[in-house]
Amino acid sequence: MLMVDLIEKKKTGGELTKEEIDFLIGGYTAGEIPDYQMSAFLMAVLFRGMTPGETTALTMAMAHSGDMVDLSSLGEHTADKHSTGGVGDKTSLVLCPMVAACGGTMAKMSGRGLGHTGGTIDKLESFPGFSTDMSPERFLEIARTVGFVIAGQSADLAPADKKLYALRDVTATVNSIPLIVSSIMSKKLASGARTIVLDVKTGSGAFMKTEDDARALARAMVDVGRQAGRNMAAVVTDMDQPLGFAVGNALEVREAIAVLQGVDVPDLRELCLVLGSQILTRSGLAPNEDAAREALLRSIESGAALRKLAEMVKAQGGDPSAVFDPTLLPAAAVRRTVRAPRDGYITSMAARDIGLVSMHLGGGRATKEDKIDLSVGVLLAAKVGAYLRKGDPLAEIHAADEAAAERAEEELLACYTFGDAAPQLPPFIRGIVC
Amino acid sequence: MLMVDLIEKKKTGGELTKEEIDFLIGGYTAGEIPDYQMSAFLMAVLFRGMTPGETTALTMAMAHSGDMVDLSSLGEHTADKHSTGGVGDKTSLVLCPMVAACGGTMAKMSGRGLGHTGGTIDKLESFPGFSTDMSPERFLEIARTVGFVIAGQSADLAPADKKLYALRDVTATVNSIPLIVSSIMSKKLASGARTIVLDVKTGSGAFMKTEDDARALARAMVDVGRQAGRNMAAVVTDMDQPLGFAVGNALEVREAIAVLQGVDVPDLRELCLVLGSQILTRSGLAPNEDAAREALLRSIESGAALRKLAEMVKAQGGDPSAVFDPTLLPAAAVRRTVRAPRDGYITSMAARDIGLVSMHLGGGRATKEDKIDLSVGVLLAAKVGAYLRKGDPLAEIHAADEAAAERAEEELLACYTFGDAAPQLPPFIRGIVC
Repeated sequence: MLMVDLIEKKKTGGELTKEEIDFLIGGYTAGEIPDYQMSAFLMAVLFRGMTPGETTALTMAMAHSGDMVDLSSLGEHTADKHSTGGVGDKTSLVLCPMVAACGGTMAKMSGRGLGHTGGTIDKLESFPGFSTDMSPERFLEIARTVGFVIAGQSADLAPADKKLYALRDVTATVNSIPLIVSSIMSKKLASGARTIVLDVKTGSGAFMKTEDDARALARAMVDVGRQAGRNMAAVVTDMDQPLGFAVGNALEVREAIAVLQGVDVPDLRELCLVLGSQILTRSGLAPNEDAAREALLRSIESGAALRKLAEMVKAQGGDPSAVFDPTLLPAAAVRRTVRAPRDGYITSMAARDIGLVSMHLGGGRATKEDKIDLSVGVLLAAKVGAYLRKGDPLAEIHAADEAAAERAEEELLACYTFGDAAPQLPPFIRGIVC
Repeated sequence: MLMVDLIEKKKTGGELTKEEIDFLIGGYTAGEIPDYQMSAFLMAVLFRGMTPGETTALTMAMAHSGDMVDLSSLGEHTADKHSTGGVGDKTSLVLCPMVAACGGTMAKMSGRGLGHTGGTIDKLESFPGFSTDMSPERFLEIARTVGFVIAGQSADLAPADKKLYALRDVTATVNSIPLIVSSIMSKKLASGARTIVLDVKTGSGAFMKTEDDARALARAMVDVGRQAGRNMAAVVTDMDQPLGFAVGNALEVREAIAVLQGVDVPDLRELCLVLGSQILTRSGLAPNEDAAREALLRSIESGAALRKLAEMVKAQGGDPSAVFDPTLLPAAAVRRTVRAPRDGYITSMAARDIGLVSMHLGGGRATKEDKIDLSVGVLLAAKVGAYLRKGDPLAEIHAADEAAAERAEEELLACYTFGDAAPQLPPFIRGIVC
């Protein structure tokens, strides 16, 4: 088998066999197929697409390129959740404790964030002493005893994806549905959970700008996961504005705790209930969605979910006191209130740009080596559709110093548009693909 | 400027500026842009194409990536000819001496062939002692005194093309018209001739299988050359069957000499007259095509063209006696006559496969390191449209030994189809693009 023939086949619209895809991924992971052939292949995939069969074969080959985590000792209720990424997305911090409190087992591997905010791990490091460094045995033990654990992603989890993703990033071959599917799903499949629930974002702050693209991605991921024998569902959700009100690491932890304390942050809480219902019903922990929703709400009201978060922080070496007293979380030196520049409705908020305001404050990484300032970010006071009078609080900037806060204020104001008529708001949950 | 942005721009159908293309080729030649980004770009070009402006900018950037040969001291009548490659193509060996005898200056750089037969240089090495190794001064001196010289292609002639071609070859990105145009024309422009005439082959033995593709390639090359200020014309010619009767290095030299001696090998002689007419009229050596044709025919009748070939062989260190006595050329040990297997018309001959018969006999290179046996090949006795009786000579195989000849006979017979009705023959010259 020659790589150049496989490139030619894809270029001319042919369908690769499982054997050909195994050769391709095996050879690339082993360093036998050079980057310059793989990047030409990826560009051909970008133009020609892949059939469902090819996408599944590609995902499986990538999943099997490294360790396959075995969670079978944890029973039938292991679950994982993945989000395609958005601004203010602290869902895992709320969802996982809720599911754990309802009898599910969220044994997650997670990466650090690159971009506007940190990843879930970065956020959890707001708890002093928290660590994701642990042995596989300890990982399973926390999962078994607490029902919720997050480890850093092992270097040998889908190494083909790591190599391919780095190549796609510099060859303009990121935005291809089969390539996105295989990248996400190879890691999820290798991570071992029986039930996988996906949160596919759509809108200006998401990678998938249109609902159609988001739905197609969701459909493809669900199909691949099901082919691999997992319980699957995907929720398509709005990312035209940030999720919740907090953007920035410790600020987001605080908001997650608030939801677990019973505060209704509408979009965030609803998303966790919908994702959680999918997990509980599909993993056999609830007979139907109503029962699942009921159980999840109860886990908040009873304080069980909040206690699960504390247990998990403690099990991973962190100080859990901040779970019950969020004033102990890292706080920024400077807070600056940004005020509405006119009377009117907020008609749009550029979600991605608001993420960048937080990143420029020091809350995100531009390169892997950047250190994150966990305390900084933006706390929104109002979202799209709100009517404000000139001078009303729009947001609060949390910054390391006055100069940074001033720059952020200017940047932030440019993220809004205002109008005299109330905007039409699309539903936050756009659909469930299963 | 970032390479990934240029890939993205081409991928999404944008038009690159001259500055962007200069950055691309400059950076790639200097090793600053890695192969894996260039191959993704090439694949995007394959799907998106290039505008005439982009193609010209690409060609010019590649031409200027190395030495630009200065032929200005040779006057206004410098000319070059390029063929896109076919089977039995010994045109340069006939055309160049004819043009030189008519006052033109063919100062050519040529590569060695890779594929079914050798290149022009390989063929000329049938003359003992012949060498293409010479100083630039000597190159110009032979051009000035003889009017015809062929040097090996300097390593610094369009180095960007050398690097790009090697990459295209292993990434399935060869068959893109703008990439083919820039590859051919960058070398021709860097070689310095004022007039460039192209022979674009079409048919089963050519790279361009359809006449439309060949015409599009011809059009694009002529346009780029004209943009660069050269006198241009392209002839689209048939390559559904080999050109002339001889396939194999010394056999082709012998056929070229025959034409220069006045033998009418119809397609070969006509092609040289058409190409030569274009050169003489466009470089100002003849007022019109009739006069040009007249002059070219006279160069054969007078023996002037044959003497030019001998002068050139001598000037480049070879023994010219074989020009006047072709029995002195390398001859194969074994000749085997292949006979018609049935009564009927030859309805088709697979040109490329006949080239491969010659290559398998040792007459071509599969890799750059292969040594060529100049004596072997196939001498056709009849071409498409001929009516043969069973047992009539079809071809003569020239081989190193009986076993090779026997294998070649079997291979060769598989190249023909026969029928009871005379086939429709398309015209050999399909058109002139200028």
